[in-house]
Amino acid sequence: MQKKIEQVKVLLDALPYIKKYTGEIFVIKYGGSAQIDPVLKDKVAQDILLMYLMGIKPVIVHGGGKKINELLEKLEIESQFINGLRVTSKETMEVVEMALSGNINKEITSLINQHGVKAIGISGKDANFITAKPIDIDKYGLVGDIISVDESVINNLLDEKFIPIIAPIAAAVDAKSHPGFNINADLAASKIAASLNARKIIFMTDTPGVMDKNKNFLSTLIEEEIIALKDEGTIAGGMIPKVDACIEAIDRGVPKAHIIDGRVEHALLLESFTSEGIGTVIKK
Amino acid sequence: MQKKIEQVKVLLDALPYIKKYTGEIFVIKYGGSAQIDPVLKDKVAQDILLMYLMGIKPVIVHGGGKKINELLEKLEIESQFINGLRVTSKETMEVVEMALSGNINKEITSLINQHGVKAIGISGKDANFITAKPIDIDKYGLVGDIISVDESVINNLLDEKFIPIIAPIAAAVDAKSHPGFNINADLAASKIAASLNARKIIFMTDTPGVMDKNKNFLSTLIEEEIIALKDEGTIAGGMIPKVDACIEAIDRGVPKAHIIDGRVEHALLLESFTSEGIGTVIKK
Amino acid sequence: MQKKIEQVKVLLDALPYIKKYTGEIFVIKYGGSAQIDPVLKDKVAQDILLMYLMGIKPVIVHGGGKKINELLEKLEIESQFINGLRVTSKETMEVVEMALSGNINKEITSLINQHGVKAIGISGKDANFITAKPIDIDKYGLVGDIISVDESVINNLLDEKFIPIIAPIAAAVDAKSHPGFNINADLAASKIAASLNARKIIFMTDTPGVMDKNKNFLSTLIEEEIIALKDEGTIAGGMIPKVDACIEAIDRGVPKAHIIDGRVEHALLLESFTSEGIGTVIKK
Amino acid sequence: MQKKIEQVKVLLDALPYIKKYTGEIFVIKYGGSAQIDPVLKDKVAQDILLMYLMGIKPVIVHGGGKKINELLEKLEIESQFINGLRVTSKETMEVVEMALSGNINKEITSLINQHGVKAIGISGKDANFITAKPIDIDKYGLVGDIISVDESVINNLLDEKFIPIIAPIAAAVDAKSHPGFNINADLAASKIAASLNARKIIFMTDTPGVMDKNKNFLSTLIEEEIIALKDEGTIAGGMIPKVDACIEAIDRGVPKAHIIDGRVEHALLLESFTSEGIGTVIKK
Amino acid sequence: MQKKIEQVKVLLDALPYIKKYTGEIFVIKYGGSAQIDPVLKDKVAQDILLMYLMGIKPVIVHGGGKKINELLEKLEIESQFINGLRVTSKETMEVVEMALSGNINKEITSLINQHGVKAIGISGKDANFITAKPIDIDKYGLVGDIISVDESVINNLLDEKFIPIIAPIAAAVDAKSHPGFNINADLAASKIAASLNARKIIFMTDTPGVMDKNKNFLSTLIEEEIIALKDEGTIAGGMIPKVDACIEAIDRGVPKAHIIDGRVEHALLLESFTSEGIGTVIKK
Amino acid sequence: MQKKIEQVKVLLDALPYIKKYTGEIFVIKYGGSAQIDPVLKDKVAQDILLMYLMGIKPVIVHGGGKKINELLEKLEIESQFINGLRVTSKETMEVVEMALSGNINKEITSLINQHGVKAIGISGKDANFITAKPIDIDKYGLVGDIISVDESVINNLLDEKFIPIIAPIAAAVDAKSHPGFNINADLAASKIAASLNARKIIFMTDTPGVMDKNKNFLSTLIEEEIIALKDEGTIAGGMIPKVDACIEAIDRGVPKAHIIDGRVEHALLLESFTSEGIGTVIKK
Repeated sequence: MQKKIEQVKVLLDALPYIKKYTGEIFVIKYGGSAQIDPVLKDKVAQDILLMYLMGIKPVIVHGGGKKINELLEKLEIESQFINGLRVTSKETMEVVEMALSGNINKEITSLINQHGVKAIGISGKDANFITAKPIDIDKYGLVGDIISVDESVINNLLDEKFIPIIAPIAAAVDAKSHPGFNINADLAASKIAASLNARKIIFMTDTPGVMDKNKNFLSTLIEEEIIALKDEGTIAGGMIPKVDACIEAIDRGVPKAHIIDGRVEHALLLESFTSEGIGTVIKK
Repeated sequence: MQKKIEQVKVLLDALPYIKKYTGEIFVIKYGGSAQIDPVLKDKVAQDILLMYLMGIKPVIVHGGGKKINELLEKLEIESQFINGLRVTSKETMEVVEMALSGNINKEITSLINQHGVKAIGISGKDANFITAKPIDIDKYGLVGDIISVDESVINNLLDEKFIPIIAPIAAAVDAKSHPGFNINADLAASKIAASLNARKIIFMTDTPGVMDKNKNFLSTLIEEEIIALKDEGTIAGGMIPKVDACIEAIDRGVPKAHIIDGRVEHALLLESFTSEGIGTVIKK
Repeated sequence: MQKKIEQVKVLLDALPYIKKYTGEIFVIKYGGSAQIDPVLKDKVAQDILLMYLMGIKPVIVHGGGKKINELLEKLEIESQFINGLRVTSKETMEVVEMALSGNINKEITSLINQHGVKAIGISGKDANFITAKPIDIDKYGLVGDIISVDESVINNLLDEKFIPIIAPIAAAVDAKSHPGFNINADLAASKIAASLNARKIIFMTDTPGVMDKNKNFLSTLIEEEIIALKDEGTIAGGMIPKVDACIEAIDRGVPKAHIIDGRVEHALLLESFTSEGIGTVIKK
Repeated sequence: MQKKIEQVKVLLDALPYIKKYTGEIFVIKYGGSAQIDPVLKDKVAQDILLMYLMGIKPVIVHGGGKKINELLEKLEIESQFINGLRVTSKETMEVVEMALSGNINKEITSLINQHGVKAIGISGKDANFITAKPIDIDKYGLVGDIISVDESVINNLLDEKFIPIIAPIAAAVDAKSHPGFNINADLAASKIAASLNARKIIFMTDTPGVMDKNKNFLSTLIEEEIIALKDEGTIAGGMIPKVDACIEAIDRGVPKAHIIDGRVEHALLLESFTSEGIGTVIKK
Repeated sequence: MQKKIEQVKVLLDALPYIKKYTGEIFVIKYGGSAQIDPVLKDKVAQDILLMYLMGIKPVIVHGGGKKINELLEKLEIESQFINGLRVTSKETMEVVEMALSGNINKEITSLINQHGVKAIGISGKDANFITAKPIDIDKYGLVGDIISVDESVINNLLDEKFIPIIAPIAAAVDAKSHPGFNINADLAASKIAASLNARKIIFMTDTPGVMDKNKNFLSTLIEEEIIALKDEGTIAGGMIPKVDACIEAIDRGVPKAHIIDGRVEHALLLESFTSEGIGTVIKK
Repeated sequence: MQKKIEQVKVLLDALPYIKKYTGEIFVIKYGGSAQIDPVLKDKVAQDILLMYLMGIKPVIVHGGGKKINELLEKLEIESQFINGLRVTSKETMEVVEMALSGNINKEITSLINQHGVKAIGISGKDANFITAKPIDIDKYGLVGDIISVDESVINNLLDEKFIPIIAPIAAAVDAKSHPGFNINADLAASKIAASLNARKIIFMTDTPGVMDKNKNFLSTLIEEEIIALKDEGTIAGGMIPKVDACIEAIDRGVPKAHIIDGRVEHALLLESFTSEGIGTVIKK
């Protein structure tokens, strides 16, 4: 009995969050271990379902580097990286798209649909809702820079109670000349969050969040602090694009950007429905 | 951290209930200690709020015998009971109505409003939504037998996101001749639940639920079992009107009627969102 | 036949008023003899019904000093007045609320419901729609000063075709510390009228309206004239709070405030649907 | 003052009618002196306006024999009658239509529009809403028998708050072969009333209503009585098509058909909003 | 087969026009031979139907000088012209209105209704949607100058999927003193187009369009060029009111005004759905 | 000029089809050369766009055998066929899905989006809208038999003005055990058409349609004739599944099923908007 009452208390502790977030859009950049480990995957699906039932409108953006590499390898297509960007030929682009739209995207969609909600998997090519132009066609090929996000498409889907699952591929403005673009998933998530006036953007990573130079975890940061941490080299490597995407989002009006540890079970709920959260929050 | 994960698991355990009950009406007969003890009162308000935020539409029906007695005493009006019914003169009726509509009803309304939702306190006289005729005007005076419940009035309020709090007073069909009727709160709750096609009716009592003759708690019962228990005298006293009200509700289409122990903190949530519940469930 | 044609002409004389007022809100401060005399009560109900059928949205605010006094006396609770305000202890407040919300409010609601419309009786505690703070807790106790009126609650009820009947009780902003407040009904009516952008506020009194110093009836007044009449002492006694409430209403945007003689049968219709009206009109 | 109270009582006497008729359609066959006398015309317009403001949806059908005759005469076109029907050549049809749609219809429309409502003048040719076939093309020419009434067209106009004014002209089903048909206005009104599920059809005539053989006025009649009166020859001449039209309407579901004296000022209101009315009512 | 493919290509050539014009209002001033020649009339009806089915909202304004003259002549009413305006007595006005509203307007309405759409014929008197004042009552009589166009009336009809056919007659603001006004159909069309935010206004004439002084056809003109052509006398006679009406329309916000040759079969479609069009386009 | 008039006549010839099909759903099974030849692809996109603009709601279902074979070959995965069905291992299924959902589906979506409409590419896994069970898991692996089509998902998308492009992949009812199913695109199209109450289903093939035994083209067939032709062996090979899918559709209520020659430019428009069409029509 005591245990049951404990359970109920937990439900009640979530009350203020439910009140605050009902009707709001959360953009979730899904990636890392949480996208690979079968147990974690299932937890993520449960978390998204609970968010949805509590009135939050989740919008999922995913990446998929590993699957792309795997498929390129099998097809014996070599892939070169310049400045961290994958040089994307037409042939590579086709593989990227098959891996993202044809494999990962549908896998996530299925995962969530198993719980009785209606997830729908799309890419920026659907209804041309993300358009891009090449960053440098000669150097990087079909790596794209986002020009526009048509939020009405996502809102149409949300209006019909769908949970959109978005693959980071963009349509070319001039679709005749380019078959589409490979875009950075973190930045895509930020731009989508901004265009939707999302309440939160949450990046699922394989790190506990942002650390200071003494490896102490930082739970809250403002833009200036981020810049200082980058300048002093504390934020480095793979964390740089994450914090840059966070800044992009908050600069364009998203109130809070979260970097959380996707390796922790139910990280999404822990961050959203408990008082301290588990990751780093970045705000204006 | 482990504790937080435990918390999240509790939230997830509630998922199937949230899915099942979202958009459904729960009629709650509020009474007993849960209506008197300040700590319990607060818990009830929290429970109702959580239900509301999870998409349930709670409708509260209350009684108020103690307050009526208290006020009658202060006013030195004597009250006689015949067959468990309070003989209700016009003078007594005025006191009954002041205690119910003017005191208890508004107190519950206030209690719930403190949590940022919009409760609205009414009686069957409002919009004439419950009408009654006298059971036996010469014997009992203004004790009424419900003729009709206009569920559209409650649905109008639910449509506007109000939580209705209902005092058990009915309007007379011929309002000129009678100022109103004192009606049984349990039966009123059952008839309201039936007319609203409620998913559940929950009676909050000061007992753990229904027991068999060996004082073993019975968690599930069907109508025939209830009748047998009444016949053998195991269900007796104050429990009789409760089970009768339960049968009234399920006979008229409410899938489940619950008799729960209002003395247990968060009894409403325990019954609604945990697998075993805490009280007796009665179904067809 | 001639008589019938006369009747029809009367209907036609009402045409311009019907055209002008359809869809508009009239706030009616109901009180005085019209609230006590059984014949007058019935006429008021008829008038409100006709207004309603002609497309006006009536909102009724009532007082109830006499009933409160009566009940306090019966309960042997003494009541002290300072500067015309009833010093209101918690015990007194409970009685005030029972008399207002539990007796008078439901009586008016019933009266109007007998004519086949849907009146609903509420107080400022319902959905917390009127909040107040103490004027001077030490001096007057629970006498409140209105802080806010949430007009959306009344509009929700009007949208569902209800006629709201409002008792002058307010919720405390900090509901934990105070059980509610006794507020002035005239001022409550004015603030409600202003928040609803009412077309008219009508005060039903036991006087023919405002008089000049020679006891000549004044049919139209502007704010400056009211002030002059108060300064010279012509407006005095119980008329002062009425004209103050009128000024409060017109200062906050209500086009016209009426002080009418509720002792005249059908005073509401006479004032609203005949060319000269019967009371004093106050405008900017 | 007494006079004013009398006025208000008249308004209140109309209450039950307003309650009963709000939202209902009244089809009015407008004709006779009420369509010619300038004073009566103005009264009719006022009556229709009042009906409209009280929530009734008036639909006006008019005739226009006099104007047609006048115009035919001026144009020196001879007109022959067989069995009371005007033999209608193409040339005559053009004149009939100009007189009805181009003159009388717009005159009535203007008359009503002067009071601030939106009347719209149409004929059965508009949106092809009345179609007809020739009764006997060789004998009567373009005299039509109504085949269908498309009530959706009138409902479309009522939905947009227009008052439809209808000239009795029908479109040919095969519009290529016939330019349109001259139809009987009384019958057109009946068929329109039936197709719209009108609450009432009112025929404005230049008689006090139906009389028995002793010239006693008959205020209420049922179908069988009408037939008996026709058989005995008491109903004769111009009254025959009126009562036939009444029977057509009530046979097809219109609850009441009225034959009233249009020469009486405000005959429409007298019939609709006073207890005895002024004409003959025919019902099933 | 080749022929069929040719046909399909034609459909596809119309695609960009369909995309551009769907949901837009086109005001068509219908007149000249296209209103008289039976073959042309039929083509116009087909063109309007196709426009309608392709999502354009056509609004037709017509004149009718010939019919008016014919009828005046038959009735032996002499008609005098001053400065190109018909001096309009009350007697003449009645004839004008019968010819326009009772004959031509219904004829066009019928013509279009034969194709299975719902055209509705009205004049400015309907719902008083065009009001006018006399230009010079002593000189011209009932020739009116448009004061206002109530576009909501036309939008109400368009909302109900009607095609409005409008006769150029206006109501008097003071309807008691004047029975209505004869207004210029070209100007009426321009003012209606402007008030409706029409995408196009198209004038159907009996000329190929505007010519320069060497009789070369001019396919596109801007306002300044029109003025120059008028100044040099190249635009003269009946073309002046047309170009003035065009300028009125584009000055008040209509993007394009077209003067087309109504003698060409399907001139409306040719102008609207082929790349070069057939007439003169005037724009800002 | 003559040519332009010819063009306009073509537009007008399409009128009856536009009237008939506006608001109706057409399911198009897209495949064969029309899906491969760049010129034909562009024509198909234009045809679909024109249908859409003319008020038809197109729903596209595609196959993709060639692309699947190509990708399997590159990945050196061998594929075995039993009774014309591809034995589908988990590994093969992944490739099938990448080719269909990740490549072909998005290519078609892009193709159509280039014309300014909003196509959205999904598979039966999205919102779980097509579920299937294995035909014979041991023999064929993940080849599925459709159990249900949730038409509400497609209707949701159509309501938001999307053109759905559907890949023939189904979700497993028990998603945990099977990653999805490879389903026959022709049958999927038929079942989708039936569940949507489509007006037409059109199969694009690389044949002119159905022939009799003398190789004469058959333009119209009923079910019994199809069966006879199958029995005599005239319908054979790849045509069998097409006609079976046609029969499935018409048996379940689709009025007409068309087998057309996708190698003909604009075959879709030719079939839908010209009087004789170009393929074989099958009806009840």
